[in-house]
Amino acid sequence: MQWGGRFAGGPSVIMQDINASIGFDRKLWRQDIRGSRAHAAMLATIGLLSAEDEDAIASGLEAIAQEIEAGRFAFDVALEDIHMNIEARLTERIGEAGKRLHTARSRNDQVATDFRLWVRDAIDGLTAQVSDVMLALAQRAAQHAGDPMPGFTHLQTAQPVTFGHHLLAYIEMLERDRGRLADCRRRLNACPLGSAALAGTSFPIDRAMTAAALGFDRPTANSLDAVSDRDFALEFLSAAAISAMHLSRLAEEIVIWCSAPYRFIRLSDAFTTGSSIMPQKRNPDAAELVRAKTGRVTGALVGLLTVMKGLPLAYAKDMQEDKEPVFDAAEAWALSLAATAGMVRDMVPDTARMRAFAGSGFATATDLADWLVRVLRLPFRSAHHVTGRLVALAEARGVDLADLTLAEMQAVEPGITDDVFSVLTVEASVASRTSYGGTAPANVAEQAARWLAVLA
Amino acid sequence: MQWGGRFAGGPSVIMQDINASIGFDRKLWRQDIRGSRAHAAMLATIGLLSAEDEDAIASGLEAIAQEIEAGRFAFDVALEDIHMNIEARLTERIGEAGKRLHTARSRNDQVATDFRLWVRDAIDGLTAQVSDVMLALAQRAAQHAGDPMPGFTHLQTAQPVTFGHHLLAYIEMLERDRGRLADCRRRLNACPLGSAALAGTSFPIDRAMTAAALGFDRPTANSLDAVSDRDFALEFLSAAAISAMHLSRLAEEIVIWCSAPYRFIRLSDAFTTGSSIMPQKRNPDAAELVRAKTGRVTGALVGLLTVMKGLPLAYAKDMQEDKEPVFDAAEAWALSLAATAGMVRDMVPDTARMRAFAGSGFATATDLADWLVRVLRLPFRSAHHVTGRLVALAEARGVDLADLTLAEMQAVEPGITDDVFSVLTVEASVASRTSYGGTAPANVAEQAARWLAVLA
Amino acid sequence: MQWGGRFAGGPSVIMQDINASIGFDRKLWRQDIRGSRAHAAMLATIGLLSAEDEDAIASGLEAIAQEIEAGRFAFDVALEDIHMNIEARLTERIGEAGKRLHTARSRNDQVATDFRLWVRDAIDGLTAQVSDVMLALAQRAAQHAGDPMPGFTHLQTAQPVTFGHHLLAYIEMLERDRGRLADCRRRLNACPLGSAALAGTSFPIDRAMTAAALGFDRPTANSLDAVSDRDFALEFLSAAAISAMHLSRLAEEIVIWCSAPYRFIRLSDAFTTGSSIMPQKRNPDAAELVRAKTGRVTGALVGLLTVMKGLPLAYAKDMQEDKEPVFDAAEAWALSLAATAGMVRDMVPDTARMRAFAGSGFATATDLADWLVRVLRLPFRSAHHVTGRLVALAEARGVDLADLTLAEMQAVEPGITDDVFSVLTVEASVASRTSYGGTAPANVAEQAARWLAVLA
Amino acid sequence: MQWGGRFAGGPSVIMQDINASIGFDRKLWRQDIRGSRAHAAMLATIGLLSAEDEDAIASGLEAIAQEIEAGRFAFDVALEDIHMNIEARLTERIGEAGKRLHTARSRNDQVATDFRLWVRDAIDGLTAQVSDVMLALAQRAAQHAGDPMPGFTHLQTAQPVTFGHHLLAYIEMLERDRGRLADCRRRLNACPLGSAALAGTSFPIDRAMTAAALGFDRPTANSLDAVSDRDFALEFLSAAAISAMHLSRLAEEIVIWCSAPYRFIRLSDAFTTGSSIMPQKRNPDAAELVRAKTGRVTGALVGLLTVMKGLPLAYAKDMQEDKEPVFDAAEAWALSLAATAGMVRDMVPDTARMRAFAGSGFATATDLADWLVRVLRLPFRSAHHVTGRLVALAEARGVDLADLTLAEMQAVEPGITDDVFSVLTVEASVASRTSYGGTAPANVAEQAARWLAVLA
Repeated sequence: MQWGGRFAGGPSVIMQDINASIGFDRKLWRQDIRGSRAHAAMLATIGLLSAEDEDAIASGLEAIAQEIEAGRFAFDVALEDIHMNIEARLTERIGEAGKRLHTARSRNDQVATDFRLWVRDAIDGLTAQVSDVMLALAQRAAQHAGDPMPGFTHLQTAQPVTFGHHLLAYIEMLERDRGRLADCRRRLNACPLGSAALAGTSFPIDRAMTAAALGFDRPTANSLDAVSDRDFALEFLSAAAISAMHLSRLAEEIVIWCSAPYRFIRLSDAFTTGSSIMPQKRNPDAAELVRAKTGRVTGALVGLLTVMKGLPLAYAKDMQEDKEPVFDAAEAWALSLAATAGMVRDMVPDTARMRAFAGSGFATATDLADWLVRVLRLPFRSAHHVTGRLVALAEARGVDLADLTLAEMQAVEPGITDDVFSVLTVEASVASRTSYGGTAPANVAEQAARWLAVLA
Repeated sequence: MQWGGRFAGGPSVIMQDINASIGFDRKLWRQDIRGSRAHAAMLATIGLLSAEDEDAIASGLEAIAQEIEAGRFAFDVALEDIHMNIEARLTERIGEAGKRLHTARSRNDQVATDFRLWVRDAIDGLTAQVSDVMLALAQRAAQHAGDPMPGFTHLQTAQPVTFGHHLLAYIEMLERDRGRLADCRRRLNACPLGSAALAGTSFPIDRAMTAAALGFDRPTANSLDAVSDRDFALEFLSAAAISAMHLSRLAEEIVIWCSAPYRFIRLSDAFTTGSSIMPQKRNPDAAELVRAKTGRVTGALVGLLTVMKGLPLAYAKDMQEDKEPVFDAAEAWALSLAATAGMVRDMVPDTARMRAFAGSGFATATDLADWLVRVLRLPFRSAHHVTGRLVALAEARGVDLADLTLAEMQAVEPGITDDVFSVLTVEASVASRTSYGGTAPANVAEQAARWLAVLA
Repeated sequence: MQWGGRFAGGPSVIMQDINASIGFDRKLWRQDIRGSRAHAAMLATIGLLSAEDEDAIASGLEAIAQEIEAGRFAFDVALEDIHMNIEARLTERIGEAGKRLHTARSRNDQVATDFRLWVRDAIDGLTAQVSDVMLALAQRAAQHAGDPMPGFTHLQTAQPVTFGHHLLAYIEMLERDRGRLADCRRRLNACPLGSAALAGTSFPIDRAMTAAALGFDRPTANSLDAVSDRDFALEFLSAAAISAMHLSRLAEEIVIWCSAPYRFIRLSDAFTTGSSIMPQKRNPDAAELVRAKTGRVTGALVGLLTVMKGLPLAYAKDMQEDKEPVFDAAEAWALSLAATAGMVRDMVPDTARMRAFAGSGFATATDLADWLVRVLRLPFRSAHHVTGRLVALAEARGVDLADLTLAEMQAVEPGITDDVFSVLTVEASVASRTSYGGTAPANVAEQAARWLAVLA
Repeated sequence: MQWGGRFAGGPSVIMQDINASIGFDRKLWRQDIRGSRAHAAMLATIGLLSAEDEDAIASGLEAIAQEIEAGRFAFDVALEDIHMNIEARLTERIGEAGKRLHTARSRNDQVATDFRLWVRDAIDGLTAQVSDVMLALAQRAAQHAGDPMPGFTHLQTAQPVTFGHHLLAYIEMLERDRGRLADCRRRLNACPLGSAALAGTSFPIDRAMTAAALGFDRPTANSLDAVSDRDFALEFLSAAAISAMHLSRLAEEIVIWCSAPYRFIRLSDAFTTGSSIMPQKRNPDAAELVRAKTGRVTGALVGLLTVMKGLPLAYAKDMQEDKEPVFDAAEAWALSLAATAGMVRDMVPDTARMRAFAGSGFATATDLADWLVRVLRLPFRSAHHVTGRLVALAEARGVDLADLTLAEMQAVEPGITDDVFSVLTVEASVASRTSYGGTAPANVAEQAARWLAVLA
């Protein structure tokens, strides 16, 4: 932006700059042409358009699609938006018939239809991408179903889990993301076309026909709502924001796991970059950017919620501010999913190092407490208390729990027997967690197999 | 807050102030007791708890519920949260058995379970409230199915619609809100109990049993995800934010409709207030507050999305910041729904005044354009152009379209006949909009009746 | 975006798409060249660069600036960002000397410097624009210092004010916006250059020299902070969000004032648009878009706050997500200011209509209450009560306060005299509000004149 | 909340629940009493109140203050807000004089005044708290001015820095926070009292007198703006959001530093908690909660920006939603500052471990590259390239740079001499960064001393 001077052109320049949407809504060209073809076919069926006119419109729109695809279409900012650009070009190409296309519709229902189609396409594309990340995770989970790593809470070593189990947690999140996309799609899949400006139309149109032709489940039921509803965009952005948050969590873990004191995984050059001044760096840029994209997606959601707040019915120009946040968030989400799938496939875990950390830090203290409950029938709170004393003892001696002698243990709780050592290894710990959803390798292998089957 | 001095008590005061959640999570007491009873029953079934202990726990918890209900429970901030407060009191009442209750669970899965139960209860309560607003709207829509009002776009008179049609638009929005609540409920309805701290447990628990006892559809499938998932809260807040936005739109309209130049409706003293300095005021405070509540709900959503961003697995204390935004947003939403239902039932429309505005401002210009298309077979764009000239003529003469003479019209478009005047009245205009979803009174009456049946 | 297929190119395509910033950071080219020239001059002064090399660099950069200005520069996405694009081109043009330019700096301090320079330029441009809106308002305020309009609270008629007074309220808001921009500029005006990657440098650089050459007040004081600080962007976005909110309030008023039942002002075709289906419409699109832009500016602020949350020191790639929200918000703000200035100059108020509304709705009830206090020495609360009874009486009779007879008044409060009627006119009411900041025309004229002088 | 049933009480219950603010605005009682005393004193000075009445009001208000302080004041929700509660109680206590207090003011200017006073008090308290965190940091920085730690970018080892230098970075951030608080205070410090409902007043009030009495710099200049401006709250929230983000960064670092693979620092039990199931845990809850509080502060900012969007002048009831977000954010900020100061003072760094990590991971590669530039006069880009080859060589051999032999180095770059080893130690590296703001221990000690002096 060149500060100053730019608006010296006066009101006409200002108005064009703030009002024209062709700079971004040209992304809707495919949807606009699909919508217009369906509308024209319906008008012909009910006799409002002659067969010749409909033919001319259909082939004219087809030709325009080819022009745009080929980069030969001259978008004109004076025509404001994609809808007027295409209609004007159509009339230029086919004459009078072009002027008949807008019968029984308005830009209000046209733009609502086009945008719904775009969001629906985006949902389909993103659902496939979410599924691909899930597939990548399921494959790695199957591979590492039995490899222990420290399970953290508060980023403190808590209990051993398996790396496969950890990765499966993200599949659960992404499955919910898929569910939200599916619900959003189902809810948005009603066709506004034929709602006209706001009140419906007096022409005897067949809304069920256009709805079906465009793959909608039904026409919308109230014309005022149809042209002023942007719930589908907001629900899409909500789903995006939650999913981006999920991806940010894995991204944060990747950044931490790549950090020198951790070194749990290593990413290849495909997903890292060097430094302009520090030749040794292998920066996890892709993960950092995935983490950061959460911001723009949340920002897009807030932006559109703010736009829609307090708008009287029906259409208001404010709603033109709906597209850019959705386009931007969809792009950010798609990039984040692609980068995440790539990193999941690319990362090489250092399983020995993870195993070593899994076994330190008194990670099997809970196993000890559970043994006290199971074998000695101590109440859990008492077992917790005894274990705390044993951990304190081990900590003071600078050893781990398994390194205490039986005598030392018995000094704290006389009932302890040699059997207790059988639960203090990492392997025993993870193998024991056989409750549904627990980290036992057999569980994890089964869940991974189940997901691989679902995703196949 | 007393600035300064407060933290002079040192670390212990600071830590208690920032760490304790009992100030707000006491709202979960009912859910916590339900969860503990189901857990104890399951422990007894699998033999980890004797029948006597289970009996003691059940009756102890029942007694505690009565204490809390009666306001006789002494919440202790030193015990941090509702879970420890109840467990400590239980042990105080029943002794050793109380210490056995926490076997095979952790606060992580316990709090996740309690909070899901609370959100599920909130969903049920709010769904009923949304339905009640829909009912109020449907009743008013049926009553005013044929009463014309100016349909606005850009807050400019566009075409006449009926007041009933306008109100039905909000039912469509609220129906989507109900759908989102239902989807959220279905997705959240998995039981985290038994996921323990993060890794599952080695005790032979029956998660299906506790899930069923608490009305969940299934146990959660991954223990790490189960204790670190707050999607259900975020999805709830997303639904709340979109619904609050819907309510803000109606509230804005109520504020405008009550304004002196409009005076489309009048609210009674039940939903308005006076002024401390201007005795004549009848301020639509309830509508303004509903409009404003959008802010806090959106803020709550942003807040929790921000909290969850980039958190490594599994549980982190950050997640304790999940409850207050949800409690606050649920309360704001509930209040907004109650106030909206009340205002919809309370408002008295000035139908004569609405009718008068509906007929001014060239509101039937589209009808004229459509007539040119339908009768003279002009292409729509040409009809639009002709109508524009006629509007300019009428505007210049200071009259409305119906006040132009046939001769004046024919001077612009010779083909126009007397028949044109039949479409220029408000009544003809609304009656003609018979397309599905259009504003024709018959349509509106039918839709209103359909909703009344659905909501019955 | 073409869903599917796009990322089939594999990791390299994904990484380029998510990592490269040249698509947006090319906007920094002027700042990057300024920064490099200052850096090279300093390196030459301290002897790290020969005079010949510095000459070559200076003229090379100058030539590159001309290439970019002329649109002849070939941006290469493989070179990631604007910094590497320019440096690579420089080396291509001048050879070895180009490779010496990056001595004693890093991309981390370079990008921090460039971006600060850009934000500073934006602040200067926007401050001028804010001032221009203030000037437009001051001119209209001077013109309408004495024209009454209804002063609203809750959009209910409260007391008469003058149109000039109303417009001056916005000048106060914008003056605070200017203040925030100035404070932000002062705080950001420290030069990060020379902080290198994060730790400073061992070269004997002169940071005061580069800071001065680039118009900074001082070099930054901590190198870790310098490369990881984005406060200046966040503070800029906060100021933008508050200012956009101000503009949204005026925009909302313009939309309402243009609405048929109000018709307080009229906007020309320069700031309104027609309808594709309703030829009579004159939609206040510019005002609606200004109102809506609030959303994207708030969204940008939220986005960047989210990005920065919880980032460890020092630079992380997440910070690359700082530029687009700032660019987008600055553009939205600039457009909104330009459109607002245009509308303020364009609008034609219907002063007679405003005057008429100012005098209805018991707008002078407060004047009556104040008279009772001032003349009859009633306590204010008692005066309020008496006035309420008189308003109720007038309302019941369907007249305004001034239409009550003295006898009717005295029936409520015997002390009332004929003098009371002198305060019940609109003109008397506004003229009486002579307290500092009050709406008396003399006050308003004085304030308008003061602002015109300040802004001259 | 008890779902269902609650609103069965009908409109009056709903309206009271949504409309009454006494539940939260009672926090303003000190400010309300200060404001009323100043107003009464002014009314007496200009003769609108007798000396006896003013005395009665002053002592009545004093008595009420004592009642509230002592917890003996019966707040009445039917009186809606703190202002009416106090005024009603005053009249109850002193009779007629109480009814005279509201002369020449309105709740609109009264609440604006009270809330400004509250925010100003909060600013003063928070400024002191920010300064205390700075002091804690400066003390630790002085103590660790020379202790090396790995400087990270992208959480990858980049170059050695000192722990003191790292801590000083946060002082810079907090100093900007102080600056924003000071600017906000200066801008808000204008007194709205006397603006009355919206138009000013006809009473001959002395606004300069009340402004001065309440510590304001000036009275506000436009009455419409004065009662509808909430910029001071938004600017306060913006400053809070940026500062909370700063604190979240340090909190994140503390969480990571406490994590087992890092163990850079250790927090005492004063700022950590244990686990209900894992007796060995020492969870950094305070740090996690500080990190999370960012969410609610950002949410509060978004909430109020949303509330204010598009509100017509002047006062609207929407603005009642201003207080809770400000109260909540101020509380969260205060807690976060207290906890941060506490943790900074509490943490015990493991300087040996930090030193060890600082020296690994080729952290001195930049020093090598700089040596090549300085001593061999290689262009920086060539030196970068040579260093990259040496790092690759060392990595392949599994050693660090300093462990390569001179011969191995010369095989890559023949000009390298023994002198190079002098720059490859951690101590040499940090000592060399003497540029202003760089990490050299002498620099750090000087900066720490400067801050200690400033903060003394």
